Amino acid sequence: MIALKPARAQSDRRSGSRGGDALCALLRPAAEAVEAALGRWLSDPLIPTALAEAMRYASLNGGKRIRPALVLFSADAVADAADRPADPMPAAVAVELVHCYSLVHDDLPAMDDDALRRGRPTCHVRYGEAMAILVGDALLTRAFEVLARGVAEAPLSARLTGELAAAAGPAGIIAGQAADMGLCDVPDGPEGLRSIHARKTGALIRAAVRMGAICAGAGEEALAALTAFGEAAGLAFQVTDDLLDATASAKILGKTPGKDAEAGKRNYVAALGIEPTRRLAADLNARAAAALEILGPPADTLRHLAALLSERDR
Amino acid sequence: MIALKPARAQSDRRSGSRGGDALCALLRPAAEAVEAALGRWLSDPLIPTALAEAMRYASLNGGKRIRPALVLFSADAVADAADRPADPMPAAVAVELVHCYSLVHDDLPAMDDDALRRGRPTCHVRYGEAMAILVGDALLTRAFEVLARGVAEAPLSARLTGELAAAAGPAGIIAGQAADMGLCDVPDGPEGLRSIHARKTGALIRAAVRMGAICAGAGEEALAALTAFGEAAGLAFQVTDDLLDATASAKILGKTPGKDAEAGKRNYVAALGIEPTRRLAADLNARAAAALEILGPPADTLRHLAALLSERDR
Repeated sequence: MIALKPARAQSDRRSGSRGGDALCALLRPAAEAVEAALGRWLSDPLIPTALAEAMRYASLNGGKRIRPALVLFSADAVADAADRPADPMPAAVAVELVHCYSLVHDDLPAMDDDALRRGRPTCHVRYGEAMAILVGDALLTRAFEVLARGVAEAPLSARLTGELAAAAGPAGIIAGQAADMGLCDVPDGPEGLRSIHARKTGALIRAAVRMGAICAGAGEEALAALTAFGEAAGLAFQVTDDLLDATASAKILGKTPGKDAEAGKRNYVAALGIEPTRRLAADLNARAAAALEILGPPADTLRHLAALLSERDR
Repeated sequence: MIALKPARAQSDRRSGSRGGDALCALLRPAAEAVEAALGRWLSDPLIPTALAEAMRYASLNGGKRIRPALVLFSADAVADAADRPADPMPAAVAVELVHCYSLVHDDLPAMDDDALRRGRPTCHVRYGEAMAILVGDALLTRAFEVLARGVAEAPLSARLTGELAAAAGPAGIIAGQAADMGLCDVPDGPEGLRSIHARKTGALIRAAVRMGAICAGAGEEALAALTAFGEAAGLAFQVTDDLLDATASAKILGKTPGKDAEAGKRNYVAALGIEPTRRLAADLNARAAAALEILGPPADTLRHLAALLSERDR
């Protein structure tokens, strides 16, 4: 296991952009370790060169790697590296592959039709629509190959596969995206929004935290606490995203802002107004923090990450 | 395990369409059992109604179910139901889900742009492009959930997941489709064609046969024999498909014929001519049959299936 201790105090002091620099500093060691592992899983000589290049473009692209960091920090909250039944890195890589696939497919012209992602042309703008569909399919499929071949303990491998498939599948991310696109019936108002976000964004964040805990051999109580944390933090993350979409600029976001309002998409700011949305985010963040209490000091990195995410500006 | 004994002799005699009726009769018991299991995996109350309906449209649609039958017949070739470490049905369902997903995505406007599949409007024609992308993603993800949650033996579950992910992923089906679309470099002539087909069609057929054998506890020799069978039969299947695309009518095929030539796609008939392609198919079928020899009478159903597939007219 690679040491994941960030230079926290220093970067906190440097943080001029509402926690942005501190967030990057906290995530950087985890992000670098995840990217190294991701790169290894994508440098398979059996993948055709052009396809592998497009897969790397869509996944090794300066993302913050929040979800894999949640896997790793959640494992840290449960047990030291030496005391874990499994290394959480393959789970972290698999979670990030699923996240990258979902971005590639969500950006497609038939879906959200986004031209800009993390400050660069989206995959279909760069490589064409057919390649982008295949790249998404390939990243998703490889996520499951990573869990099957990368996790030595077979019972853990099967359990992690079940967690990830449930979160990513038609009762998780895909249900959320279908509802967000207006392809499925969803109740009006904040309850409907909550149901969209719990699946579109929340399901993978919840799974990330749970998968890290499972790799670290979490007992029932710790797993329940981390699940509650993941659910609150996942929803808080999306509520904050809605706030940022309504208030930030393209330069800061690295993607087109105001798209939600333009596309007539539901979001919390439109449903509740800016101030009530801020209060909702604060309430969810408080609940996430409360859920971690029983885990004590080993959950400090996770706490710190949740706090910085609540203050982020992109 | 459901009994999978077809009324073979009778249907062979009725077969007016070059083995078509006999093929359906051989496959029907397996197809019905697979469809019942598929239906159970897709009737999950957590899947939004509209998404579940589109997933069923794309998967419970009168397909012949050749690949899941290969899983089940391959298991039969290795061991009786009572002597197997695992029921092959979840593997059969997972393989069919991957096949159905690949058809939905291959048919998309940005890919092969097909309007007709199994005699009905394709998924994106019926439900729109966004839903079709999500349906494909959902069928693929659910395949892995079926292996994770449906296979009780964890080491087998992880092994089957690895087999399916490798066959479906960027070194398998996706590489084949990318090459077929001209998105990756492939050598000219029959060798390039072989490399496209080995991945686009062959990889999943090979995996189907291997997964059935693994569920039945195949030893090294039996697994090697069935792998060789799967490779030859998979290539033979695609060569026969190319022959049918060049010679059959839309009414018989249930899809638009002559699309390959029209799209400038490479196929064996264009590369070799009709008669040499027929000889190649015959050679591959002979090699498939030879590979099964060491398995004796338990492989009879698999032999019979391979023979009927070589004579099919759709």
